[in-house]
Amino acid sequence: MSTSHAAHPDRLLPADPGTRDIARRLLAGVEDLPIISPHGHLDPTMFTTNDAFPDPTTLLISPDHYLTRVLHSAGHELSELGVGGHEADPREGWRIFCSNFDLYTGTATGYWVEQEFEHVFGINPDRISAENADTIYDELAEILARPDFRPRALAEEFKLEVLATTDDPLDDLAPHKELAADPTFTTRVLPTFRPDAYTEMYKPEFADKVQQLIDTAGDGQTGFEGYLRAMRYRRQYFIDAGATSADHGTHDADTTPLTNAEAQKLLDKGLRGEATFAEALAFEANMTYRFAEMSQDDGLVMTLHPGSYRNHSTSAFEKYGADIGHDIPFQMEYTRPLQPMLSAFGENKDFHFVIFTMDETTFSREIAPLAGYYPSVYAGAPWWFIDEIDAMNRFRQATTGTMGFSRYSGFIDDTRAYCSIPARHNTSRRVEANYLARLVAEHRITEDRAADIIVDLIDASPRRVFKL
Amino acid sequence: MSTSHAAHPDRLLPADPGTRDIARRLLAGVEDLPIISPHGHLDPTMFTTNDAFPDPTTLLISPDHYLTRVLHSAGHELSELGVGGHEADPREGWRIFCSNFDLYTGTATGYWVEQEFEHVFGINPDRISAENADTIYDELAEILARPDFRPRALAEEFKLEVLATTDDPLDDLAPHKELAADPTFTTRVLPTFRPDAYTEMYKPEFADKVQQLIDTAGDGQTGFEGYLRAMRYRRQYFIDAGATSADHGTHDADTTPLTNAEAQKLLDKGLRGEATFAEALAFEANMTYRFAEMSQDDGLVMTLHPGSYRNHSTSAFEKYGADIGHDIPFQMEYTRPLQPMLSAFGENKDFHFVIFTMDETTFSREIAPLAGYYPSVYAGAPWWFIDEIDAMNRFRQATTGTMGFSRYSGFIDDTRAYCSIPARHNTSRRVEANYLARLVAEHRITEDRAADIIVDLIDASPRRVFKL
Amino acid sequence: MSTSHAAHPDRLLPADPGTRDIARRLLAGVEDLPIISPHGHLDPTMFTTNDAFPDPTTLLISPDHYLTRVLHSAGHELSELGVGGHEADPREGWRIFCSNFDLYTGTATGYWVEQEFEHVFGINPDRISAENADTIYDELAEILARPDFRPRALAEEFKLEVLATTDDPLDDLAPHKELAADPTFTTRVLPTFRPDAYTEMYKPEFADKVQQLIDTAGDGQTGFEGYLRAMRYRRQYFIDAGATSADHGTHDADTTPLTNAEAQKLLDKGLRGEATFAEALAFEANMTYRFAEMSQDDGLVMTLHPGSYRNHSTSAFEKYGADIGHDIPFQMEYTRPLQPMLSAFGENKDFHFVIFTMDETTFSREIAPLAGYYPSVYAGAPWWFIDEIDAMNRFRQATTGTMGFSRYSGFIDDTRAYCSIPARHNTSRRVEANYLARLVAEHRITEDRAADIIVDLIDASPRRVFKL
Repeated sequence: MSTSHAAHPDRLLPADPGTRDIARRLLAGVEDLPIISPHGHLDPTMFTTNDAFPDPTTLLISPDHYLTRVLHSAGHELSELGVGGHEADPREGWRIFCSNFDLYTGTATGYWVEQEFEHVFGINPDRISAENADTIYDELAEILARPDFRPRALAEEFKLEVLATTDDPLDDLAPHKELAADPTFTTRVLPTFRPDAYTEMYKPEFADKVQQLIDTAGDGQTGFEGYLRAMRYRRQYFIDAGATSADHGTHDADTTPLTNAEAQKLLDKGLRGEATFAEALAFEANMTYRFAEMSQDDGLVMTLHPGSYRNHSTSAFEKYGADIGHDIPFQMEYTRPLQPMLSAFGENKDFHFVIFTMDETTFSREIAPLAGYYPSVYAGAPWWFIDEIDAMNRFRQATTGTMGFSRYSGFIDDTRAYCSIPARHNTSRRVEANYLARLVAEHRITEDRAADIIVDLIDASPRRVFKL
Repeated sequence: MSTSHAAHPDRLLPADPGTRDIARRLLAGVEDLPIISPHGHLDPTMFTTNDAFPDPTTLLISPDHYLTRVLHSAGHELSELGVGGHEADPREGWRIFCSNFDLYTGTATGYWVEQEFEHVFGINPDRISAENADTIYDELAEILARPDFRPRALAEEFKLEVLATTDDPLDDLAPHKELAADPTFTTRVLPTFRPDAYTEMYKPEFADKVQQLIDTAGDGQTGFEGYLRAMRYRRQYFIDAGATSADHGTHDADTTPLTNAEAQKLLDKGLRGEATFAEALAFEANMTYRFAEMSQDDGLVMTLHPGSYRNHSTSAFEKYGADIGHDIPFQMEYTRPLQPMLSAFGENKDFHFVIFTMDETTFSREIAPLAGYYPSVYAGAPWWFIDEIDAMNRFRQATTGTMGFSRYSGFIDDTRAYCSIPARHNTSRRVEANYLARLVAEHRITEDRAADIIVDLIDASPRRVFKL
Repeated sequence: MSTSHAAHPDRLLPADPGTRDIARRLLAGVEDLPIISPHGHLDPTMFTTNDAFPDPTTLLISPDHYLTRVLHSAGHELSELGVGGHEADPREGWRIFCSNFDLYTGTATGYWVEQEFEHVFGINPDRISAENADTIYDELAEILARPDFRPRALAEEFKLEVLATTDDPLDDLAPHKELAADPTFTTRVLPTFRPDAYTEMYKPEFADKVQQLIDTAGDGQTGFEGYLRAMRYRRQYFIDAGATSADHGTHDADTTPLTNAEAQKLLDKGLRGEATFAEALAFEANMTYRFAEMSQDDGLVMTLHPGSYRNHSTSAFEKYGADIGHDIPFQMEYTRPLQPMLSAFGENKDFHFVIFTMDETTFSREIAPLAGYYPSVYAGAPWWFIDEIDAMNRFRQATTGTMGFSRYSGFIDDTRAYCSIPARHNTSRRVEANYLARLVAEHRITEDRAADIIVDLIDASPRRVFKL
């Protein structure tokens, strides 16, 4: 066994010896369970082609805005790292990464990378730096060429039982169908219906997108009615391909419904590019309500994650496009904006509605109280900027007293970095063991009960909430 | 002694052995002090009639929305639990409760219930479940029939020195008067003036209520002047019956005053049912200011707890009425909205103004800074959704650095569940011991000083702040 | 060595013995490093005159609103403490302070005072109270008369390497120049450009101030253009006198730019005293943007600290003036309001922009995400009401997972209390050791790396960020 820090069997467990012993026992009950990943951003074709990964930088760095944003904050151009389709020498990008590795100390990302090196690739550099950048690169490149490091082999190695992708409503889902029909590949790769691009009339591509959507549905209906029917049609298409959930990244959490006549007027303005930002948000709010309504009928789990100021740096957006690390959270509210929708559908226990947030203040104030009352509401795992060790612990501290453990969504990795999946799920298991061990050590719950709870949190919760 | 977890002498104390030893010593200094409960929702007639409690479900479950909301979130109808006056078989309700007891693990409520079983009823089921539901029910039913489990006997057992109720301004307070005159019952049962129903013009019953209020005052004056006089008259009636405080559950914390002419206009619109929500809030804000003004004269302690979206689920409200667990907190501010009132009255040290919140973010940002400056302002104990173990600890961590210990209201149980009172107060004492022990162990304060502080927090604070 | 609690070598270190050992070692690496104080409110003439401090009350209590506000909350008049230029007997003020010393237990201030007594003055009263008030006063008075307690001698004793003051743009900075030219005094005393009084058109003195500013620049230009040129001119004057930063205490964080024509219109209204509060804020927002623009050219570090309701108690403001302890924080946002400015200048790594907050919720939600992306953004140390031990620890917990350690401003004491400087910086060093020791004990980072980080946080960060 390695002597590295990342390999330490007690990593992330509590320092107090008595509490640590309890945590070790709790962790042992879940550490080797299969991985269930009900939401993420991987490309399913990696499993249909099963090609070797091209090089360490393209696999580990370029697509992961958690990593590239930190290098950017230190003054490096994202183009040097191959972000946003910019051509870059992978080895040069790797050198920048290693030269700046100290910047990651204490971050969630740094922890995941060290875990990946240790547990996925089995390499254990003493300290990653400019000095050993080339050696590590060569070592990794050699490993990536091996057949046991192809995507399918890794899925087996990771014990990846379920992996959901995030897909455009008009996607044909061919890879998902191909994988489902392939008896040699046992990971369930499920699509997720993500219609944001068809509801955000503040985006320039809105009119074209909507026209395509309505055309695809192909039943001849037009206008807002046709738009709603097309949405329902494509949701069914996704369900037929295995989807169990629909994901919505809205601006805010407003769910005020409109009459169809009002919605038609706004849609017309949006298609002509004449809607104000306020009108666009009103249209989006109505659609959040309508998607909840659709879930009553088709049963898709609904996940909502508002509250991110997308593409905050205008110049960086123009240069690199979206999803490169400058979506920044802002103040969020749920109680008031969700009221219309929850008042209409929230009492239905077959409707599963998962609320994500990047504003931690909403956990104790709004999300736990809502999830502790409405049979439909589940508190989403801490998400994105708050999917790190201390924040995950704060999530438990902020919600458990009010909603217990049963209203939790299960862990969500939400990743674009395939090889970080085991590290992220293992982190979650250790954080749960850490938190529960403290409750046991403080004589708040029994260890027997804690041992049941941790299995429920890791394994049963995501299956139950995401209808897997 | 029982071997149950709930009976463990170190429950809620810190896990670190050295810190735990300090906490034990601090706790020993306060664990047996009498209970002072300056705010809650019990019915005082329980002590005048002193009837036996009817059955376990009616005593412990139906009136306690902390308990019933959790069962509701798991898909049970509130009607099955006897909520909102719905007829239900108590034994069936009890079975639902026991079958779902695992849902309460880690919640404040679950902890209180286990404590009640252990310390009030002396029963100690190994694990509450569907299997032992009937046995526990029968055992409790037998206990409730015993004379030493009547309300008055329990008050003595609980060492309940002061218990404040929450009362309608037009209540005749006959039970309070009867109890005060009864030398055989030593608990002080004090009324609290709670005029919300007479200031919320967004409620349908507003006009009738206000008419009754003005009629009751009986001095012939009408309009807004008569309304203010009636308020003053009824406050004096409460003071004469022993009240020391007035409680205000407003929508937000706004205190912008109006001229009486402006208020008169709004009142007229409200009585005709024509006020907008914004106008209703403006009227309420002015009344918060006017109640503070009244306190300058009559000395009633003023407690304020805005920030709850009442009756969030419209369908549940229509079916069950208010106060059944779907009042949900929202984002709250105090600094700006309280400025008019505090600028007028805040410098008066004989005015006691207690701010409660369910939005924890306001503790370090607004409440502690206000309480650490204004001689009138006290930080209310963590309230409602945040009256649980970890949140109570966070309250101390968020406020102490800025306001010390002297600006604390004392613990508030705010309960509708009589038998949970000892558990709630004991929890508070343990949380204080836990927090103070850490300060001692980190060499931030001396143990001598901590021993003084904990007595002050538990015993002297509520007496001082609530003028008891 | 003293046996006092304040002298305990493990004060503020973790209670867990294993973690404490790590913390001790980390602390040893930084405890004796020189003090770098890049922002505060001391008067530089104390070093040019080098007069003895007049008496304990005038030195320690009257100018420190952290101390006086607590006494005020207990019902004492600020005039009794010599606040706001009110004449008061220093010995009487001292007696009030000592009689109420128990109020400070657990506060940041109380901790600093005990440290000052122990480590600056070498006195160690068993327990400060009414009884020993006079003795302590006499003892301190004697010490203050000694030559080794003059300002310059203390600066050497404190190892004060850099001390920035906060100065009016029209200040001639004569003391700074005199000190810079004096080879016998080695502390660098640097001015800081603080133009608030010239941008806040909601203040009565605005018109006079602006006129003086424009006159001083003296290049004959008038109007908004002249105003901007005068700002640039005075910034250069400050830079020539050693300034490296400009400090901005705005109402909120808005940075929406105006055209110069729009700004001219608002300025005209402001000078005539006719601007609404909303117009004043629009003018201020534009100026925040313009100051960032100036920093692109002249390189001054820009620090921003919005979010305080200044002079909350109107009557106290009328009696005592500003900065006496009733500036109260309110809810703050950064992501949306800073977007215009960061989108224009945020990608420039030579622009250093430090965000301070008193609303802790913004650390994990907005400030760490911004600082973890923009090369220009640094997270300011927890500030003012949250510059206390637990809040400093929460700052690390809220930001490290997202932004690591490299985006931190370095510690800021922001003090008006000269003798509290060593205690404040020592506190910060202990809190960092405490936090890092936990990461090591939980096997999240190696102790080697932690030892490097703590030196970087304490010593290199402020030099790097403030361009010292």
